[in-house]
Amino acid sequence: MDNILELVDKLKSGKISLENFIKLYEENYILKHNDIHVDTFRNKRLGFDEVIYGRNKTVEQIKDIISLYEQKKLRFFCTGLDNQKLKELKLSFPNLIICEKSGTAKNFSSSKPRFSNSVGVIAAGTSDSKVAYEAIETLNALGIPNKKYIDIGVAGIHRFLHYMDDFKKHSVLIVIAGMEGALPSVVGGIFSQPIIAVPTSVGYGTALSGFTPLLAMLTSCANGITVVNIDNGFGAAMAAFRIIQQIENKNDR
Amino acid sequence: MDNILELVDKLKSGKISLENFIKLYEENYILKHNDIHVDTFRNKRLGFDEVIYGRNKTVEQIKDIISLYEQKKLRFFCTGLDNQKLKELKLSFPNLIICEKSGTAKNFSSSKPRFSNSVGVIAAGTSDSKVAYEAIETLNALGIPNKKYIDIGVAGIHRFLHYMDDFKKHSVLIVIAGMEGALPSVVGGIFSQPIIAVPTSVGYGTALSGFTPLLAMLTSCANGITVVNIDNGFGAAMAAFRIIQQIENKNDR
Amino acid sequence: MDNILELVDKLKSGKISLENFIKLYEENYILKHNDIHVDTFRNKRLGFDEVIYGRNKTVEQIKDIISLYEQKKLRFFCTGLDNQKLKELKLSFPNLIICEKSGTAKNFSSSKPRFSNSVGVIAAGTSDSKVAYEAIETLNALGIPNKKYIDIGVAGIHRFLHYMDDFKKHSVLIVIAGMEGALPSVVGGIFSQPIIAVPTSVGYGTALSGFTPLLAMLTSCANGITVVNIDNGFGAAMAAFRIIQQIENKNDR
Amino acid sequence: MDNILELVDKLKSGKISLENFIKLYEENYILKHNDIHVDTFRNKRLGFDEVIYGRNKTVEQIKDIISLYEQKKLRFFCTGLDNQKLKELKLSFPNLIICEKSGTAKNFSSSKPRFSNSVGVIAAGTSDSKVAYEAIETLNALGIPNKKYIDIGVAGIHRFLHYMDDFKKHSVLIVIAGMEGALPSVVGGIFSQPIIAVPTSVGYGTALSGFTPLLAMLTSCANGITVVNIDNGFGAAMAAFRIIQQIENKNDR
Amino acid sequence: MDNILELVDKLKSGKISLENFIKLYEENYILKHNDIHVDTFRNKRLGFDEVIYGRNKTVEQIKDIISLYEQKKLRFFCTGLDNQKLKELKLSFPNLIICEKSGTAKNFSSSKPRFSNSVGVIAAGTSDSKVAYEAIETLNALGIPNKKYIDIGVAGIHRFLHYMDDFKKHSVLIVIAGMEGALPSVVGGIFSQPIIAVPTSVGYGTALSGFTPLLAMLTSCANGITVVNIDNGFGAAMAAFRIIQQIENKNDR
Amino acid sequence: MDNILELVDKLKSGKISLENFIKLYEENYILKHNDIHVDTFRNKRLGFDEVIYGRNKTVEQIKDIISLYEQKKLRFFCTGLDNQKLKELKLSFPNLIICEKSGTAKNFSSSKPRFSNSVGVIAAGTSDSKVAYEAIETLNALGIPNKKYIDIGVAGIHRFLHYMDDFKKHSVLIVIAGMEGALPSVVGGIFSQPIIAVPTSVGYGTALSGFTPLLAMLTSCANGITVVNIDNGFGAAMAAFRIIQQIENKNDR
Amino acid sequence: MDNILELVDKLKSGKISLENFIKLYEENYILKHNDIHVDTFRNKRLGFDEVIYGRNKTVEQIKDIISLYEQKKLRFFCTGLDNQKLKELKLSFPNLIICEKSGTAKNFSSSKPRFSNSVGVIAAGTSDSKVAYEAIETLNALGIPNKKYIDIGVAGIHRFLHYMDDFKKHSVLIVIAGMEGALPSVVGGIFSQPIIAVPTSVGYGTALSGFTPLLAMLTSCANGITVVNIDNGFGAAMAAFRIIQQIENKNDR
Amino acid sequence: MDNILELVDKLKSGKISLENFIKLYEENYILKHNDIHVDTFRNKRLGFDEVIYGRNKTVEQIKDIISLYEQKKLRFFCTGLDNQKLKELKLSFPNLIICEKSGTAKNFSSSKPRFSNSVGVIAAGTSDSKVAYEAIETLNALGIPNKKYIDIGVAGIHRFLHYMDDFKKHSVLIVIAGMEGALPSVVGGIFSQPIIAVPTSVGYGTALSGFTPLLAMLTSCANGITVVNIDNGFGAAMAAFRIIQQIENKNDR
Repeated sequence: MDNILELVDKLKSGKISLENFIKLYEENYILKHNDIHVDTFRNKRLGFDEVIYGRNKTVEQIKDIISLYEQKKLRFFCTGLDNQKLKELKLSFPNLIICEKSGTAKNFSSSKPRFSNSVGVIAAGTSDSKVAYEAIETLNALGIPNKKYIDIGVAGIHRFLHYMDDFKKHSVLIVIAGMEGALPSVVGGIFSQPIIAVPTSVGYGTALSGFTPLLAMLTSCANGITVVNIDNGFGAAMAAFRIIQQIENKNDR
Repeated sequence: MDNILELVDKLKSGKISLENFIKLYEENYILKHNDIHVDTFRNKRLGFDEVIYGRNKTVEQIKDIISLYEQKKLRFFCTGLDNQKLKELKLSFPNLIICEKSGTAKNFSSSKPRFSNSVGVIAAGTSDSKVAYEAIETLNALGIPNKKYIDIGVAGIHRFLHYMDDFKKHSVLIVIAGMEGALPSVVGGIFSQPIIAVPTSVGYGTALSGFTPLLAMLTSCANGITVVNIDNGFGAAMAAFRIIQQIENKNDR
Repeated sequence: MDNILELVDKLKSGKISLENFIKLYEENYILKHNDIHVDTFRNKRLGFDEVIYGRNKTVEQIKDIISLYEQKKLRFFCTGLDNQKLKELKLSFPNLIICEKSGTAKNFSSSKPRFSNSVGVIAAGTSDSKVAYEAIETLNALGIPNKKYIDIGVAGIHRFLHYMDDFKKHSVLIVIAGMEGALPSVVGGIFSQPIIAVPTSVGYGTALSGFTPLLAMLTSCANGITVVNIDNGFGAAMAAFRIIQQIENKNDR
Repeated sequence: MDNILELVDKLKSGKISLENFIKLYEENYILKHNDIHVDTFRNKRLGFDEVIYGRNKTVEQIKDIISLYEQKKLRFFCTGLDNQKLKELKLSFPNLIICEKSGTAKNFSSSKPRFSNSVGVIAAGTSDSKVAYEAIETLNALGIPNKKYIDIGVAGIHRFLHYMDDFKKHSVLIVIAGMEGALPSVVGGIFSQPIIAVPTSVGYGTALSGFTPLLAMLTSCANGITVVNIDNGFGAAMAAFRIIQQIENKNDR
Repeated sequence: MDNILELVDKLKSGKISLENFIKLYEENYILKHNDIHVDTFRNKRLGFDEVIYGRNKTVEQIKDIISLYEQKKLRFFCTGLDNQKLKELKLSFPNLIICEKSGTAKNFSSSKPRFSNSVGVIAAGTSDSKVAYEAIETLNALGIPNKKYIDIGVAGIHRFLHYMDDFKKHSVLIVIAGMEGALPSVVGGIFSQPIIAVPTSVGYGTALSGFTPLLAMLTSCANGITVVNIDNGFGAAMAAFRIIQQIENKNDR
Repeated sequence: MDNILELVDKLKSGKISLENFIKLYEENYILKHNDIHVDTFRNKRLGFDEVIYGRNKTVEQIKDIISLYEQKKLRFFCTGLDNQKLKELKLSFPNLIICEKSGTAKNFSSSKPRFSNSVGVIAAGTSDSKVAYEAIETLNALGIPNKKYIDIGVAGIHRFLHYMDDFKKHSVLIVIAGMEGALPSVVGGIFSQPIIAVPTSVGYGTALSGFTPLLAMLTSCANGITVVNIDNGFGAAMAAFRIIQQIENKNDR
Repeated sequence: MDNILELVDKLKSGKISLENFIKLYEENYILKHNDIHVDTFRNKRLGFDEVIYGRNKTVEQIKDIISLYEQKKLRFFCTGLDNQKLKELKLSFPNLIICEKSGTAKNFSSSKPRFSNSVGVIAAGTSDSKVAYEAIETLNALGIPNKKYIDIGVAGIHRFLHYMDDFKKHSVLIVIAGMEGALPSVVGGIFSQPIIAVPTSVGYGTALSGFTPLLAMLTSCANGITVVNIDNGFGAAMAAFRIIQQIENKNDR
Repeated sequence: MDNILELVDKLKSGKISLENFIKLYEENYILKHNDIHVDTFRNKRLGFDEVIYGRNKTVEQIKDIISLYEQKKLRFFCTGLDNQKLKELKLSFPNLIICEKSGTAKNFSSSKPRFSNSVGVIAAGTSDSKVAYEAIETLNALGIPNKKYIDIGVAGIHRFLHYMDDFKKHSVLIVIAGMEGALPSVVGGIFSQPIIAVPTSVGYGTALSGFTPLLAMLTSCANGITVVNIDNGFGAAMAAFRIIQQIENKNDR
């Protein structure tokens, strides 16, 4: 069964019944193991691989998933892993490529880019770098060219002035900031590209674990800025992916 | 002074001093009147007109702005106007085109689209329609083709099944929902385009004036969904505009 | 087209294609008018009529819906209507039966009960009565026998002692309280029936517009109490309806 | 003293005084030990055993309770136990049956079901499984047949489509979800049974430790959904128990 | 039936059955009318009259209660009435004594004090005076001597220094403050009497409608301060009443 | 200098200047050591000893204070100590009397009561016992007779019925509850004494670390209940102390 | 009695007793009328006049205060007045100078500046102008030179570049912004003067009535920025006044 | 390149182009290493050194920064370091001067003061001392004379009376308090200097981790108090620095 689209077309035109469709779909595209369902068709349906979110999963659950993937020869990419989890996974799967700076693991080396449009990943402070690296690793896994700009603060606004020419070259800007989260407003007031703002949990007290930059970004006086969850570098990369797919017309519409 | 880019190039290469640049910029691109500065160059710099946000401005302040625009023969477009403000503005400026459904006013008729890629504006319930119309009117003002799909609820999930083929045709989906805000998760799990989620203040009690759908959308288990402020149909349209500019390569990079 | 179940069976067994199913479904079960979709099949699919929620709809939108219903000879029932809306609707549709105490309107008189199991609607204070009446009117519309017990406070706990024998007779208890919302805990500790707790916005300051009783009910030390939104008498009645359908086995499983 | 009902009847008809009633009740139905009162009559009065909530109790307090139960030959069932507590209890009471997946312990093996109606326990993600298992273990302890469906996400809405026939067979659906908590809305829009929604603390940032799915579920646009506390699998099972008692008429009304 | 205590004694000793007790209680001590139960025995049971809380009741509901009271020759006292309600009640019941400064109404003139211990009612600012007057009117109705001290701010801490001798004479101090609510901390650090702190909704922005002084008072570094709801002058007076009853041993223990 | 009151009288009548008063006060009544000021006069001024609050102090800071007290032969009583701190303090000061159940330490054995009126300390659940013991130990230190009633839940409301005669004997009731915090409302509706409600952080999810019972108690429909901070058994005891001082007229007014 | 400092010196050195001091102070420096105390000495003690805060006062209370001031020939200045209050006050006191733009009233014309250092009042948007004018009017009343800069947005960051030379001339900068409140961060990163940030309630949804800019300003990554309450232009002016008094050494230290 | 001001003047007058300016600036004033940019010019531009904020940085990142500073012979000062980080840094850089009481580290000994005006650092309780020491160490690093006053509580208001003469001598008062945060209101009502209020996270329950004193300070009824983030002793010192620079006219305006 190599083509889900054919399967859907058959259903639509009545060549197979709904019952048969569900049965075939389930047999061919859903991996089941214990309490895990892996949707191997998502790749085709949505245009990207199923990325595993590791933060709320136990090491055992993640190992189960890796085993399933390895057995089916699928690409495995997992985010939200702390150093302890990374170490335990590496022990069980020595071929796993782990990255402490971003908290990610994968079973494939990032091949050369599949896209030509690039993403600028801009972080306000050194402390925001983990979120930036999560975005970067995800973009790498998706085959999207990207460049990082870390410690570009708004309090030292002159500091990003000399990157302005660089920023203009990217098709999408991911702008990451904790504290008061003002950087996306400043960037959004100068640049015309799609801007995906990522608040981080950097700061204390009134930073409210990232809710202050989140609210500030959502309330930005710069037009057309969009926002993802706190510390969600992965989500920002996926949003950039959706945009770049449209630009390069590579999704399976 | 018809070309700001030339002005910037002169500054960069040292042909004019910073002091002269600021002076020329101010004289040519900033309209000042009372407590209002209008940045007429934003159009060129960011790729879009300056849209006036009317919610927190008095009728007097808005009238001042319209007068300035009319005098300079600029296109005026204003959002966030209640019926009372619309009526008062219409009295003073009979040529103004007002729209009660969206709470907007403008001094030009929407010309034919400047772009070929289109936006789908999907709203969960009839009660969300005002936010949808604000997005639509903004898209119209920007020259972006769009189509509305209102009352597509997640509780009656079958209800949007028959729009699936339509949804696929758009380059960007704006998905609007109040209450529990689940619609973007469902749409985002099926479609691969960029999705801009707009929470609305529809609901009561635990809807928290739109914060419940806002939080739900930010926490969506569907990948790569981005979010704007509550009831911010305008912001969603501007975000779509940033994307479509990239797709059609019409921005001034 | 009088039988949706046959339609589904045809789809499942492949007698009609998905495309045909959607087309037939849409033609026969969805009323469309302006920005409104009415799902006339919900009755059969879920076992109850589509109730209109009037709070966030304009009078014009509600009138559109009534016209559609009248034209299709469907039963119309609407909740969340303030006195002003009720008056305007009554003017346009003189046959409408309006109820100020509950904020509801309908186009049919409540027939004799369709069910034999009954619901006890218990409210802590006189001030909670509007929510109680919304539940009662909804139960009446659904054909469920019910009895009201209003002003049964927890501060005067003796006050409900003499209703204990009455309470035992009902299959479901809807327990409504504002302020600190303690009544469901007390009732739930004594009675074994399903208990649906409804917090109300009665109170001031630390009552937090109903969030204090909401949180208190969710945190109840009495086992197995379930909760609905603040002031949501309608939702409590619908939850009772789901339960009584199971008891009397009248749903369309 | 084998019959509390006779005791109550005697009080009501005046055969024993209130003073005597309290004395007899206390002697026969309340176990006291240190700072613990165990209400052994709750079984008869409410129709279920007293379940111990272990989360805020020290190991010493729980051991006291087990000793009391063992001595009185009562069935002991305790929820909310972390692995450390489970281990310590097991050391002291080797016959205790402990379950790490659900965080529960009991001193009896689950006998065969006492009820014929069943409960479907549906969880959105693998990460929600602990809450699902708490519900399942409680249902088992109560003698209620049940079936689990884990990793049925709303982002992959097709994923639960092939369980639809299964879901229809249950008398009650417990629907568990973290993140944005959209699953109950989708299930509630399709199925007519009583639906008990359980938000979980799975997620980060804007998931607000489970408050986002809690608020979303309470604000659901699907009618008649009821909600319990965050991560409260036990409470959902008890609510299902109250309903099934009514269906099978096994409570002591 | 003039003695409830005899009735209880008869129940306790078995002279009357529980059924008879409930019947007699209900006939003699509960006034019922529409959705209102008035507990005329509360006076004896708790040591004070039932005070009506008018804020969430309609004028019609309050009129019903007054009629009941008048008919039974009971003392009526109602708090939480705005000027509009006061006016409408006065029209229907010309003998009613209304007080705009406190928002109260009663059908009796405050007789001479029943107690000898007094209460000091201290308010931080002129803007807090309505809450102070509600406390004062309630104390008057209860027959408790009291003295008011209004506009004693903490920012002008010298201002209350010259009242120190006065404050010492009272048995209970009610301390009322909005804004940052610091006055109870200062008073509590100097005086040894029971202190009942009342936060008010005076202020704006970060005053959070009274939640800031509420939280500040609950967190006071002065020992043994207790707090009531925001703007709850009535509740503070009732708490003082409970204390003074103990001091003068006038309650019905 | 054995009499502060004489000192104050001298100041008032002008026998000593303000400068001299401050100097004498400082020399005689303030212990200074490092960053600590201990106010030894508080005993006389407010009628009670200065109790040390240990939660936010380091072990070193507490040791400094104990040393100061021991050297000056003052009674030391400290609350808010976890087991680790208690152990370290015991090591340094072997004569210290520590109590793990309440988290307190003192350098004196509780002498026989100084007061004749007693306090009832009522806790809803076994899990609330630490807060109850903190209140009890404080009352003991103050010489106030008291009796504990633990695990008196509101869900098993019958459970406290047989304590009713006991409760009546106390002059003040401290009522402690976590979860939904309903117990004070029920107790306050039946008993006429001063009631000091203490919310606890027992519970999870919607218990909001004690804010749900706090809000519920502040919003209680029972009249005249006052509230202290979450888990603040100490504060409740001090509030009871203020009241009992008034009843027995033992304060230094 | 023309010199309070002499009075204090007499107390300190023992020439007058505390009792006499309080009596003299009260007779000479406190105006009492109904529930109002006016502290006429504050001027000398703190270095500024007592400004009346009108927002939570009734028109009647404010009129009482004006009458007192007029009678004592004091300078009256009141903030927080809406147009309705301003109109009513003007009717009663025709000589009053009212200002709608700032919501203030005074009974004196602003004389020439008493200070030489100036304050820059910078507001992000036209909608923030009312808060700016409140600061400006207060500075005028205090005799502090000032200059306004309104509509200097952070999204159009170039817009304030040409004011940079102006900003440098002021001794204190008051920076006012609603929405995401980013302007103080940008200004604070460039300028070295004291910066007083004022959040405004301009915006909607996630602006949280000014709490989002408040939190953002408190969390600013620019060093040494201080913040006042939402919309508190008056407070910012008073804070500037405290600083300028120090600079010019005009306070009564 | 020893003079940035000359560089700016050259740009302004057109002697160098913007491109050259950026290049020169970058080469001379920005240290880059890994993900860190250090802005060595900030000293001159803003009038103070760049202080490193250590709380959200890893030890490795801080070590990188120290190495950079040492290599460039710059003064290094870092705040927000816990004992573990301090220890690790000391191991790598034995010459580092670390301070556990304040959580700071520096590579230079505080020279003699550069300023003559002093700051009073006043803390309400012993538990607030860490925040006080952070302010003091920062002031020392900046060369500002200062004096500490710790354990000056508002509940023992007499306790700070004897410091009043001391307080008067300072040009700026930093007032630090946790719990209800009342101290700044009391100090602000008596003293006329600039007051910078610092809320601390001392307290529990309703202290809300410092948000209660934060809100209380922002809502203070004392005029002209300004506030910084919770526990932000560093920020308060920097704000004092900005003021004292103005007083002594030492900034580079």
